[in-house]
This record gives sequence, structure tokens and C-alpha cells, in this order.
Amino acid sequence: MTKRVYNFYAGPAALPLEVLETAQKELLDFNGSGMSIMELSHRSKIYDEVIETAKKDIKNLMGLDDSYHILFLGGGASTQFAMIPYNFLKEGMAGDYIDTGAWSTKAIKESKKIGETNVLASSKEKNFSYIPKDFTIDENAAYLHITSNNTIRGTELFTFPETGNVPLICDMSSDFLSRELDYTKFDLIYAGAQKNVGPAGVVIVIIKDSMLGKIKDADLFTMLDYRTHVSKGSMFNTPPAFPIYMVGLVVKWLKAHGGLAEMEKLNIKKSKLLYDAIDNSNGFYIGATAKEDRSRMNVTFRLKDESLEEIIAKEALENDLVGLKGHRSVGGLRASIYNAVPYAGVEKLVNFLNDFMKKHS
Amino acid sequence: MTKRVYNFYAGPAALPLEVLETAQKELLDFNGSGMSIMELSHRSKIYDEVIETAKKDIKNLMGLDDSYHILFLGGGASTQFAMIPYNFLKEGMAGDYIDTGAWSTKAIKESKKIGETNVLASSKEKNFSYIPKDFTIDENAAYLHITSNNTIRGTELFTFPETGNVPLICDMSSDFLSRELDYTKFDLIYAGAQKNVGPAGVVIVIIKDSMLGKIKDADLFTMLDYRTHVSKGSMFNTPPAFPIYMVGLVVKWLKAHGGLAEMEKLNIKKSKLLYDAIDNSNGFYIGATAKEDRSRMNVTFRLKDESLEEIIAKEALENDLVGLKGHRSVGGLRASIYNAVPYAGVEKLVNFLNDFMKKHS
Repeated sequence: MTKRVYNFYAGPAALPLEVLETAQKELLDFNGSGMSIMELSHRSKIYDEVIETAKKDIKNLMGLDDSYHILFLGGGASTQFAMIPYNFLKEGMAGDYIDTGAWSTKAIKESKKIGETNVLASSKEKNFSYIPKDFTIDENAAYLHITSNNTIRGTELFTFPETGNVPLICDMSSDFLSRELDYTKFDLIYAGAQKNVGPAGVVIVIIKDSMLGKIKDADLFTMLDYRTHVSKGSMFNTPPAFPIYMVGLVVKWLKAHGGLAEMEKLNIKKSKLLYDAIDNSNGFYIGATAKEDRSRMNVTFRLKDESLEEIIAKEALENDLVGLKGHRSVGGLRASIYNAVPYAGVEKLVNFLNDFMKKHS
Repeated sequence: MTKRVYNFYAGPAALPLEVLETAQKELLDFNGSGMSIMELSHRSKIYDEVIETAKKDIKNLMGLDDSYHILFLGGGASTQFAMIPYNFLKEGMAGDYIDTGAWSTKAIKESKKIGETNVLASSKEKNFSYIPKDFTIDENAAYLHITSNNTIRGTELFTFPETGNVPLICDMSSDFLSRELDYTKFDLIYAGAQKNVGPAGVVIVIIKDSMLGKIKDADLFTMLDYRTHVSKGSMFNTPPAFPIYMVGLVVKWLKAHGGLAEMEKLNIKKSKLLYDAIDNSNGFYIGATAKEDRSRMNVTFRLKDESLEEIIAKEALENDLVGLKGHRSVGGLRASIYNAVPYAGVEKLVNFLNDFMKKHS
């Protein structure tokens, strides 16, 4: 018997069961080839179809046309922190950043290694528990970099800055494809797959064609130069073929389940159910972030009696509710309820939280 | 019915059937966790066991002690081409290279972006059809970089240079774990997994602890600094978790089948069978490389009548012998017979080659 639990890990995280079942079924013989998808040359026709369909489906879901390129790269979002200033931060310009938590902070650190770096706003003084909204964009900036969702603290951007001619670059790792947005506002989007759209090992980079002309006129390292990957369609070297295939299955699943509009509705419904349970607990559970900036992806909370936090995480595990411990840097509890976490999983969690509260009130 | 063919792709390439069957079996529920290996937090105990066992098994197979660190990184071997000079090529020193084909050439190109780069020897004038053996090592070099197997042309190093105090760095992407060697001669070894030890998406880097002290005293990009990954055990950011798991299964399979000693015997036997068929064809098939440098991994050959090369590749496919076309940059035929390609597959190929010859002689 295959055992399945409800998985609230922050990433790598839950994948849709149907996607896993498809991968399992065709793992030894992909599409009648007599080979696993992992054994296929990345230059074979059959693999080409896999990667090109994934690109097309992502564009389609996001409403992007061919002025955007979809790249599948290795090295994770952490490598993007470096690649962005390495490509775009030219002499005489500054990289502008909004600091909304650990991931923004890491991106800022890499940028400082390259050139002038301005932090326009930060919520650090309140432990990144809210999204700063007051800042002035420098019209001569090389770009403005933002992080749309802070996985660790559980905040999310719901209004995006108008940047005029300044390119808007966004790390969407933890809420990628979770909602409808006007994605044409963005000049570069990147997202590690392992939160919302696949397994670890691939970062999706969506780059507007006009950004290629803004890259430094320098002999950059081949693998760190966005032009390399755009010109070769992510096939300059062997791409992370299996993670890309899994992303392809997930986006197909997204399309089959109503696309981003339906996914957003479900994410609103799921997160509301959980935040309501917290807010209606008479202070037994305490939401960890500003209400208007609460993430629909990572619901963070504390117990009024912090000594119960170890116990609740342990009891949750005994109830097949996995991954509820907060990030090791902040403690507390965190339920990551990405696209693939079903409504029934959140219901079960809410029932568990209510039962736990009754026992310990 | 699951169809399986014999797979001679150069990479991504054949994986052991037993390994794929294990992965398939546990794809929805890894080790009783109720989650796929792809859904597990990389910081969970259960995943930690997977990655640490893989490291230990690789060290064990290669006879390396704890003065070596095993890293699992993204970005492929192509990113290593840049990371090596970025970390080790200091002002006043040179990076020394032996140019044995396309991959060495690419490594050299990245090094030139950083500093003085010397190509001590090259077989370019003969289309990289042999391994150059005459060169003098510069005692002040930052390192000597070699490529142990040229996947495209089909040559392999069987004698490694004595470099004294100069660190020896080797790209072993296409013959990694295919034979016994004194691996303690090397200071840094790297290998894209997708040839001999796993699916695409992870590069294995084996770095001697003493190399860390040779890294430039500079504020390197975090993800491109070997110290980052050594100090965090490849867990600075989310590693390519599923490809690492697959590598772990492959090295377990290697151990269960006699380790590198047995693997080397089998690789000698397989490649001899195929080269003998070529050599005994009265010139119908022509080996593409110098006999003493023939790769046991990638067997390259031409047909005397080159107009038959399209036909033979097509007929091979009809006989479930897949991936025999030579690299697009050189043409001809290539049979990649990595660890996971069984002896029976090479036998079937040889029978096919003999039959084809009879029909067309």
C-alpha cells in the first residue's frame, strides 16, 4: 500500500499526486521510446517536444507572447542573485532593491560585489513581518529587484511597483504560477521550481527580449551570460532534463485544472481557511505577519504559549501532517500551502489545530 | 508492456534498469514517509541520509578519505569550466591546460576570461583523434587541467601526468567511476552525472581539502565559491535533490556489482568486443581515433562508404539500437557504452554491424 501524507514543507514541497503518478507510470518507457525520460538525449526529438511544450505552456498560463524567453537553468535562484548584477549592473548605474527578507538580503549581498547597490526600502527593523510600500524609484537604476513572496516570514506582495523605464526584476520562487497577474509588467522573473512547480534542480527564468540589449558589453562567463541560454534555447549545455520534464507535467496539470484563475481562487480559499482558524483562536495562535501582507503560500504563526510549539509539531506528525516547523532561523510554525496542497489537507490541518487548542486551552 | 531498447546515447544516457525500477517503485512513497523523494525537504533527516550515503559511497568506491569533499552542484560541468579559474587562477600564475577536444577547448575559453592561460599541448591539428603526451608542466602553474575522456571524438587518457606540487584538476564527466585509478593523485575532479552515474542536472565535484586554501582571497560570488558548498555540505541552497538521489542509487548499484574493479573489467570486455568488430571488418568500418587512446566509453567509427552512414543509423533504430549517430559536429557513428549499457547490448550491436556489413559488402 502506498502511504501518502499531507505535506506542508516549504520546499522541496508537495507535488500534485496525478503528476507523480504519471511520472511513475512512464519512468521506464517514455512515450513508447523504450527509454526513461532520464535516459533520452536532450537533443532528441522526443525530448525537444517535452521542453518546448513546457515553455509554451508557461507562456500560455502567464499570458506572455514571444517577446519573452523561457529558460530552464541549473544553480537555483541563488545563482540568479549573482547573474542579475553580473549581467545588468553597469558602471555608473545602481541596482535598486527592496529588502523583504532573507532572500532579498542574499540578492543584495551579491549585487554589492559588482557595483552600486541601493536598498530603497526594508522591513528588517520589524523582522520582515510586513512588505514596505513607501519608496522612490531611481529613474537611472539598472533595475529594481523585488521578491514577491517571503517564504521564511510569510509575507507576499499584492501590489507591484510601477517602475516606468526601469526594468522590474522579480524573484517569484515561492509564489510562481499561484495567481493571475499582469506578467507583462516584469522584465525578468525567476523562480526555483521546488516550491510551486516541480522538484528541485531547475530555476525558471523568464526574460524579456529587450533585456538582452541591456547586458554589459563584456566577455562574461558563458554559463552566467543570459545571452548564451537565450540563443541556445536552454540547450547550450545539458539542461536538468528530468526536473524540466516534471515542471512540464505540473504546468500541464495547472492548465487542466483551470489555469492561474482557478489556482488563485483555490489559494485564496485555502489560505483564508487557515488564517481564519488562527484569527478565531482567541490568541491561542498568533499570526506572525501584518494582515494585509499575509502570504497565501506560507502561513506563519506562533503559539501564545511558545513552549507548546515543539509538542504541536510532533503531534501534527503523528497525524500525518508533515513539515509544519517554522524555518530554523525564525522558529514558530509554518504551513506551506502551495498549489499542490489540496483543500482537504488544509481542512485536516485546521481541524487538528482546533482540536489541539481545545486540549491545551 | 514496458518496452526497453539498447541505448547508446552519449548523455543523457542509459541508466541501470534495476536503478530505474527502484526509483519507480518508491516514487510516490519514499521509505515509508508518505512523500515522494522529490517532495521531501532537503533539510529533513530522511533526505540527509540519502545525500550523505551517496557521498560516502562515492568516496568508498574511489578509495578517498576525509581529506576529500564530495559536492553535488547545479549548472553542469560547463559551470565548472568557469568556477575553476574564478577560484584558483591568481594574479601572477597561469592556468595550464591540455587540449584534447571540444570540452577542454571550452574550459580553456573560460580560463582566458580570468587570466594567463597556457595550452601545454593540443591534438587539434589531427581533429583531436589522439591524446597528446609530450608536454612540460610549468611548476608555477595554478593548476593543470585535463579532460580524461573526450566524449565527442572517443579518446581517453590511460596515463595521467605527474604534476608534483601543481594541483591536478580533471574533468571526468564521461568516464567517471568507470575504472580503478589512484584517485588520490587528483586535487579536484568534476563530472556531470548524465553520462555514467545518473540523470542530468547535477555535477559531482570532488575537491581535496588543501585546495580550499588556494582559493583567491576575494569576495567571490557566493554560489561560485567552492568554500560555500564545502562549508555547507552542498546545502547552502536547495541542491538538485532528485538527480542526487538517482546518483545515490547508481553508486549503490555499482557497489553491489563489484565496484570499480568489476566495472573496469566489464568496460574493457565491452569495448574490446566492439573495437574488434571494427578492426576485423576489412576496412568496412574504420576506427576514428588512435588505437592506444581509444575510449572505452565512446566508441567512434566511420564507414568506408560514408554514404551508408545515414542508412546504418536508421536500420539500427529499426533494430532497437538507439543513439548511434556521431556528434553533430563530427558526423560518423558513435556507440556510447557506459557502465549501464549491458554486455548483451554490445553483443547485439556487434551482430547488427556484422550483418549490415555482409549485406553491403
